[in-house]
Amino acid sequence: MPVRRRIPADGGGSPPLADIRRLRGGIDLGGTKIEALVLDDAHAVVGRARAETPREGGPQAVAEVLATTMHEALGIAGVAAEHLAGVGVGSPGVVDDAAGTVADAGNLPDWIAPYPLAAELSQRLGGVRVRLGNDVSVAVDAERLLGAASDRRNVLGVWWGTGVGGGLVINGELFHGRGFAGEFGHTVVRRGGALCGCGNRGCVEAYAGRKFMEAWVHARVAEGHETSLLKLMRKQGKDRLTSGIWERGVASYDPLALHAMERALRAIGAGIASAVNLLDLEAVVLGGGMGERFFATHGPRIEQYMHMNLFRPADPPLVLPTKLGDDGGAIGASLLVAAA
Amino acid sequence: MPVRRRIPADGGGSPPLADIRRLRGGIDLGGTKIEALVLDDAHAVVGRARAETPREGGPQAVAEVLATTMHEALGIAGVAAEHLAGVGVGSPGVVDDAAGTVADAGNLPDWIAPYPLAAELSQRLGGVRVRLGNDVSVAVDAERLLGAASDRRNVLGVWWGTGVGGGLVINGELFHGRGFAGEFGHTVVRRGGALCGCGNRGCVEAYAGRKFMEAWVHARVAEGHETSLLKLMRKQGKDRLTSGIWERGVASYDPLALHAMERALRAIGAGIASAVNLLDLEAVVLGGGMGERFFATHGPRIEQYMHMNLFRPADPPLVLPTKLGDDGGAIGASLLVAAA
Repeated sequence: MPVRRRIPADGGGSPPLADIRRLRGGIDLGGTKIEALVLDDAHAVVGRARAETPREGGPQAVAEVLATTMHEALGIAGVAAEHLAGVGVGSPGVVDDAAGTVADAGNLPDWIAPYPLAAELSQRLGGVRVRLGNDVSVAVDAERLLGAASDRRNVLGVWWGTGVGGGLVINGELFHGRGFAGEFGHTVVRRGGALCGCGNRGCVEAYAGRKFMEAWVHARVAEGHETSLLKLMRKQGKDRLTSGIWERGVASYDPLALHAMERALRAIGAGIASAVNLLDLEAVVLGGGMGERFFATHGPRIEQYMHMNLFRPADPPLVLPTKLGDDGGAIGASLLVAAA
Repeated sequence: MPVRRRIPADGGGSPPLADIRRLRGGIDLGGTKIEALVLDDAHAVVGRARAETPREGGPQAVAEVLATTMHEALGIAGVAAEHLAGVGVGSPGVVDDAAGTVADAGNLPDWIAPYPLAAELSQRLGGVRVRLGNDVSVAVDAERLLGAASDRRNVLGVWWGTGVGGGLVINGELFHGRGFAGEFGHTVVRRGGALCGCGNRGCVEAYAGRKFMEAWVHARVAEGHETSLLKLMRKQGKDRLTSGIWERGVASYDPLALHAMERALRAIGAGIASAVNLLDLEAVVLGGGMGERFFATHGPRIEQYMHMNLFRPADPPLVLPTKLGDDGGAIGASLLVAAA
């Protein structure tokens, strides 16, 4: 595998001069953290840095932290921004790469109107070319080119985290449809069912998105049910049920945690089955914060629930973990500037 | 449009001799009827014939009627079987074109084991080349090449009939996955819901397949509900609720007919929405016996139910009727031998 997952604290030394112009930057912009990587043309990580995503200050504050985090990764790699072939950013919200803007990024501070992220970031990085992509799409593309989906033609990426994102590899290429394909989280698994953030009912995300699992727990607690989840949250000084808290709740057999998890697994399994019945996919890759954390323990359960709704159960797709893990988003973002 | 939908009773005269070797045959093998067409290289129908599908006698009886029906169409076209570039057959069941067999065709008489349909039919048609395809796939392919989907890149065909079939056009080509893509009817719209013929629960087909709508009506009647549907059926001397009977029941506001139709429309609409959310399709083509009959009156209702579950309701796909109608299956089957 050409991707080096861990680099020494000193960054592994500077690359030879001849390779510098082939370096590229990739940034994964998440609701919680920002990860910046510098990669060489063999897709090896030669610099990395992380920062918390600002919770206030609007898009400008975020652009500022994106730039400083990338500068930090460049420092570790021992190169300057102007040596990069470009920087790709994987972002939530409505991403318009042609216009260089991101809008409606609900998990980022005050980020509603289209913000010219490409130009603003480029200006802070010595004028380097900046390309934008959807955060889940770029992560799935990284798995397609370098990871779990690299030798497969038709693959669904299910990114289970705060929400449930998706990405499709069709005939070996990332599939875009009219530009917005991959909304696996809005597969209807229960017509008229639970209310989703998209305003519709019965979507996979309405059962499985971490945010919706949390809302469901709060609603049950309001009805008088008890759970250790909220106690764990307060004890850890958090203001939301992180995937780590879910893991502890499930491991301690907290009834509400188990019930919420069951609803999530069933919804994801049924949604995957629908996609497989329609597309006869070879494989499904499970990523995202919740997916990474629960694949080993709960991946087989998702497979079982998928099986219950497969039209051809004798020939199920593989259900695989990501290969690139947490780095996938930033690696995929860097691929946006790889074909220079 | 290059396809002539109606030909005069005399068959429109024989084609010029030079064109004869470019003629091809297409047969749509349905549970109720068999349609055979002879087409020229401009896809114009130059001969046609129909017959009822045998209800007994097994695959041999069916192969015999396929051959006589094709001979009849050839007679109208004024050519012999050996002048055809080949004959394509669109068949239900498990079709293995490479092996030349069809198995598990539940709506055909005693047709479980793989039957060498290609060889048996070829032998009855002067040794002409016979190719086999899935009945719905070939009909969707005909719409892709010559019909409603001809200028579109990403299209879902929903074939609403006895069951609910499907076919996908992706990047302008019929999409097969590992060979079995397109099972739209087994999209899960209600996890744990109504039992489907596939053994799973909550599939679109379990609500919308004509056979399942009928079973639902029988179950309600057994509970004491009243309906004009079964009276209409007996009056017409039928043993099942044909699409024509459903049309009369709905038109006369029979409560059970309206309720069954509503369940079907909701399931189809939700299923389409899931496919569109995942694939960002440009268009959906509604075909099949029920689809053809109800598109004008109930297509807008399907669109409404689709809208209720679209992630991007501002940019819905077109929902279109077929262009080739009932001929689509046989035309599509003939395309199996067009690239000779």
